[in-house]
Amino acid sequence: MVNRQRMVDLLQQMTLEEKIAQLLQLAAPFYDGADSDGVITGPMKELGITEETVRQAGSALGLAGAEKIKHIQQMHLKNNRLGIPLLFMADIIHGFKTIFPIPLAIGCSWDLELAEKSAEVAAKEAAVSGVHVTFAPMVDLVRDPRWGRVMESTGEDPYLNSMFARAFVRGFQGDDLTNDRHRVAACVKHFAAYGLAEGGRDYNTVDLSERQLREYYLPAYKAALDEGCEMVMTSFNTVDGIPATANSKLMRDLLRDEWGFDGVLISDWAAIKELIPHGVAANEEEAAYKAIQAGVDIEMMTSTYVHHMPELIASGKVDEALIDEAVLRVLQLKDKLGLFDNPLRGADPEAEREVVFCEEHRNISREMAAKSCVLLKNEEGLLPLQPSSRIALIGPFAKSSDILGNWSWTGVKDDAVRLDQALLAKVPDSLVAIAEGSGIEMMTEEHYSEALSAAEQADVIVLALGEHSDMSGEGGCRADIKLPQAQLELIARLKQLHKPIVAVLFNGRPLDLHGVYDQVDAVLEAWYPGSEGGAAIADILYGDVNPSGRLTMSFPYSVGQVPVYYNHFNTGRPHDPKDVDARYVSRYLDVPNAPLLPFGYGLSYTTFVYGELVLSDEIMTVDRPLRVEVTVTNTGELAGEEVVQLYVRDISGDVVRPLKELKDFAKVSLEPGESRKVTFTIMEEQLRYHHADLQFTSDPGEFVVFVGSNSRDVIECRFHFVR
Amino acid sequence: MVNRQRMVDLLQQMTLEEKIAQLLQLAAPFYDGADSDGVITGPMKELGITEETVRQAGSALGLAGAEKIKHIQQMHLKNNRLGIPLLFMADIIHGFKTIFPIPLAIGCSWDLELAEKSAEVAAKEAAVSGVHVTFAPMVDLVRDPRWGRVMESTGEDPYLNSMFARAFVRGFQGDDLTNDRHRVAACVKHFAAYGLAEGGRDYNTVDLSERQLREYYLPAYKAALDEGCEMVMTSFNTVDGIPATANSKLMRDLLRDEWGFDGVLISDWAAIKELIPHGVAANEEEAAYKAIQAGVDIEMMTSTYVHHMPELIASGKVDEALIDEAVLRVLQLKDKLGLFDNPLRGADPEAEREVVFCEEHRNISREMAAKSCVLLKNEEGLLPLQPSSRIALIGPFAKSSDILGNWSWTGVKDDAVRLDQALLAKVPDSLVAIAEGSGIEMMTEEHYSEALSAAEQADVIVLALGEHSDMSGEGGCRADIKLPQAQLELIARLKQLHKPIVAVLFNGRPLDLHGVYDQVDAVLEAWYPGSEGGAAIADILYGDVNPSGRLTMSFPYSVGQVPVYYNHFNTGRPHDPKDVDARYVSRYLDVPNAPLLPFGYGLSYTTFVYGELVLSDEIMTVDRPLRVEVTVTNTGELAGEEVVQLYVRDISGDVVRPLKELKDFAKVSLEPGESRKVTFTIMEEQLRYHHADLQFTSDPGEFVVFVGSNSRDVIECRFHFVR
Repeated sequence: MVNRQRMVDLLQQMTLEEKIAQLLQLAAPFYDGADSDGVITGPMKELGITEETVRQAGSALGLAGAEKIKHIQQMHLKNNRLGIPLLFMADIIHGFKTIFPIPLAIGCSWDLELAEKSAEVAAKEAAVSGVHVTFAPMVDLVRDPRWGRVMESTGEDPYLNSMFARAFVRGFQGDDLTNDRHRVAACVKHFAAYGLAEGGRDYNTVDLSERQLREYYLPAYKAALDEGCEMVMTSFNTVDGIPATANSKLMRDLLRDEWGFDGVLISDWAAIKELIPHGVAANEEEAAYKAIQAGVDIEMMTSTYVHHMPELIASGKVDEALIDEAVLRVLQLKDKLGLFDNPLRGADPEAEREVVFCEEHRNISREMAAKSCVLLKNEEGLLPLQPSSRIALIGPFAKSSDILGNWSWTGVKDDAVRLDQALLAKVPDSLVAIAEGSGIEMMTEEHYSEALSAAEQADVIVLALGEHSDMSGEGGCRADIKLPQAQLELIARLKQLHKPIVAVLFNGRPLDLHGVYDQVDAVLEAWYPGSEGGAAIADILYGDVNPSGRLTMSFPYSVGQVPVYYNHFNTGRPHDPKDVDARYVSRYLDVPNAPLLPFGYGLSYTTFVYGELVLSDEIMTVDRPLRVEVTVTNTGELAGEEVVQLYVRDISGDVVRPLKELKDFAKVSLEPGESRKVTFTIMEEQLRYHHADLQFTSDPGEFVVFVGSNSRDVIECRFHFVR
Repeated sequence: MVNRQRMVDLLQQMTLEEKIAQLLQLAAPFYDGADSDGVITGPMKELGITEETVRQAGSALGLAGAEKIKHIQQMHLKNNRLGIPLLFMADIIHGFKTIFPIPLAIGCSWDLELAEKSAEVAAKEAAVSGVHVTFAPMVDLVRDPRWGRVMESTGEDPYLNSMFARAFVRGFQGDDLTNDRHRVAACVKHFAAYGLAEGGRDYNTVDLSERQLREYYLPAYKAALDEGCEMVMTSFNTVDGIPATANSKLMRDLLRDEWGFDGVLISDWAAIKELIPHGVAANEEEAAYKAIQAGVDIEMMTSTYVHHMPELIASGKVDEALIDEAVLRVLQLKDKLGLFDNPLRGADPEAEREVVFCEEHRNISREMAAKSCVLLKNEEGLLPLQPSSRIALIGPFAKSSDILGNWSWTGVKDDAVRLDQALLAKVPDSLVAIAEGSGIEMMTEEHYSEALSAAEQADVIVLALGEHSDMSGEGGCRADIKLPQAQLELIARLKQLHKPIVAVLFNGRPLDLHGVYDQVDAVLEAWYPGSEGGAAIADILYGDVNPSGRLTMSFPYSVGQVPVYYNHFNTGRPHDPKDVDARYVSRYLDVPNAPLLPFGYGLSYTTFVYGELVLSDEIMTVDRPLRVEVTVTNTGELAGEEVVQLYVRDISGDVVRPLKELKDFAKVSLEPGESRKVTFTIMEEQLRYHHADLQFTSDPGEFVVFVGSNSRDVIECRFHFVR
């Protein structure tokens, strides 16, 4: 039962030191030692805090395990004067022990229900293991595949990211966070525009206009909050010259005042102290001052609040009311999670044993993984494989369990279903020869001769290639986004055997696929598929599942073309690709403007044909939305799912508008020969954008509506919007 | 004699049609036919304008030649009711017939006087050939070498670009534009921020914060205007979602109202009509409306004003006062150029024969070219070459006259001094063997066998490599910024001869030098050196000139690192390159953060040693500027020039501040063994920047001053600025 007055009363009993300590978050090493005798040593020294401060700290980061957390909470309450429970937060990004595909892969499923389910499963496993809050969803819009953290995002589209943001928040938090102990509070991150790090280099400067910020980068954070997300995390980057963690305009004016967010705002790891290297704080005191003024409630992993807030308040530089506000928000979150009544909340060793990594969860993960895989190429129907084919499974991911992807610290690689295991479970051993073929970044002649002998008897070569999981994720940025040279060499050599080759890719970002896409006969993008990854891929390779994933981030033609994304502007001198010698147009001399594979792209084992586009009228008004109908037919021989995508273009605006914007989509499942009429409705709200004066409105004029199976291959109609 | 009232009186006599026609600019094809009988056909039809409109048009674009222009002007005045002379404008970017190095190369000279002289020479040649206005200087800040137009800019630094902007304007315009008929009016371009085209793709979207716009992108345009530049050209790109040509905030509010610019604003080529594909105008009428509202006076090469302004005025949508304002500005410029009194101005066939491409001018060009070359590498003092060495000059630029660079339409390639010619003029034929070695983009075996035989007897191989000039310039964007593969192959093969190799590079952008820099012994960046290019390079190769150029744009390590520039921010998690395994810092896994060669970098045939940095005080105030002294000694055996560079860092600001900012420099010439004390003064004005509220002020605190021979290799001291 949430009770604001109870928290206000509690706040009034707290000393200033106790209040400030509520705003401190400490990491696992402060508590891991507490199992035995409660003596805390190492890390405390680094932060320069006392044992007393640790006892009063408001929250802990990165701990999991029902027994451990129960013990720490009990110890904590014994030592805490006012009995304020610790809040346990952790990065549960794409699963707890049952690891789901990376979020970029989940995005490719275009399956919001299943995405919600994946978050629900993660929440349940985390909750019974003692976690109260997850630092997810990450909803940063991403357009630069060099950036390692694109793997944590669902992609490049603001609408789709917003839909996934909502799905994840619903999945984590459920409908009744207070009473449903199998849910965790969500923390949307990274506020804001972290995905625009310059040069795709993590933590780097972000610069953009307020228009781009509002139009493209903010919607997904806002969607998460509209769904009730309890917390927000600041981003590491600057926004308009000021690091987010000290950015009052972003945090106070926009997040708090304009959006009315009254939940807890937490800094990212050490981000308050990092205001010093950023160069907006001369010292820790100034860092603490700027962060609290901006409205950051909880300081993660540095101790500038603890050390400097007392003087800042004593000297009158900081109003104690700011601290009270922040502490009250923390207390209210604890109350909302029911911790004052049940400080252990979901932590339950028995449930933990039952629920965590249970078969039900693993099956959901397997389904999610299969839906996340994107078939990028399939010449002459090479896939699905014939069950009777002799296959050679070759490559560094043939026997690798490094398929969970980054940000899966609670998962266990050895528990993952590897591709070799899954294939052997699917077909007789006699049909499968296996060789590593190369390491991720190095190929020896021994590797190669093993690969050759595996390939010798095979009808089809299945190459399992990719980046090792640390080549993406936080701090995992690459300037070259091709597969490592060793693997390109492996492809080139095996190509000379003139056998059909299927490449299955394990990676955390869109890659430059030169040397892969042009060399092999079929390409399946498997991303990091999670705990059941091998099984899901085997299901697809053998046709037990028909692939239905669609890219949510463009695959660039080359890194020199970055950023490349579907919803770009036309420019004043657009290039018609048919005019190969055009000079004074917006183009490169050496590569196309288009990506290799566009947003929304993905193949199926069957084929879908679109009928004519039928509009309810040529004119739409505020009161008379436009109905858009199209009949989609499965013209192939297998049942399959198609993601029918609806895009709109505003021909002329107050400011320039994208060539296409995703406005809706429908995932339809069709039996062979089956037709289905898919109906969309376009309403005035969907035509709104930020005008020159930043007002978010629509205006009359001509529009184009596009429907198709990806952002490139569409049919279109024009309509007028009239006021 | 400039006489505003006279122009106002003239304006009052003009019909609306005559006024609107003053705002139209037509290109050469409209007039080239006029030599014979004044019948104008082809292009008129495309624009849909009448002969009468052509007769009334205000200005002409892209014509040169004293006789021709005299004739056209005389014909024009015969047909023009009020006797308003035509204004002849042309792109005289880096020389008229005497072509100077491309502006990016001129930037590398760090020689403002010579840069001014180069503009003066260009103005004189153009003026006697009948040109009144040049569309220069281009002062766009550039950070992305993929963009083809970086060759037209002096580089990545706002201060240096501003200094060059002023130098060029002084050189073009002189002190008395009205009476000095050997000068031309300057038109600074492209307003604004064209250099930030996304993905380095020409004409592409630009998005940035107003802070970045004001702090980095605007200063050079402002400097040109402060120097009295008569005209401004709009840029093709969007700024804050609106194409510059329709951007009232940029043009009316900032350029006119805030900066007080009252000269002529011209659209770039067809940029008004291109508001339609941009998507901010539904049709030509709306395009005309938006452009005139934004304050664009002259419409270049489209005719939306001519066609639609009459109705726009008749319907009251556009106030005729806007037209009057624009026309008056055009008339006043004509008056300022003295055209009402002498409509032929400088056009003088006799002077043209004397002045254009005269020896004096060519010598200035040769000096400029030698000062623009940047010595990037020189292992074991391979350069200068021994006069007695046998050399093999190999490569596609060995005998190429494609060394003028883009935007030199008035120049004649065949008049350029080629490298082979210059070398043969320097040393006996018997010491020089010459072979093409490869084409720009293709190498045949025949090429290679020629190269081999040329190299056979040589002591040193001189490779003349590069991009053909159309690989940069407008519309000349590349996603891959290496030398073409054929030339890398040529290097790799010749490398196997184990002879010392000097690479001389001809190119219009910073290149990724992998396969060059790591393969050869010496690298001389010659850019496109202009009419006397070969001679200047030969002067350097043989030590008649000691190279003193310094890069004004970073040479990236690879394209995957772009944008890379010296004055970046620190981030909250800067990477110490010594910590090779660091993970959670701002870095790439596969390449360094630093460029291959930093801003300010360049070698000499001699060596310079810096003494200690001596500050006048630890404290500076508004009234007490800081004196910074350093003694530089030429410790080598040859006389040489050093560019002593002064950078400042503001340790902590209201917003994040760059790690280094160039604040001053001195180019000093030192005899062997000579020492010189170089003194800089840092004043409060130099510490100003745009604060969070965009106020341009300084604030007290700690600063670092750096002095060195490039932006990387510096000595430093700290000081405090106190109010």
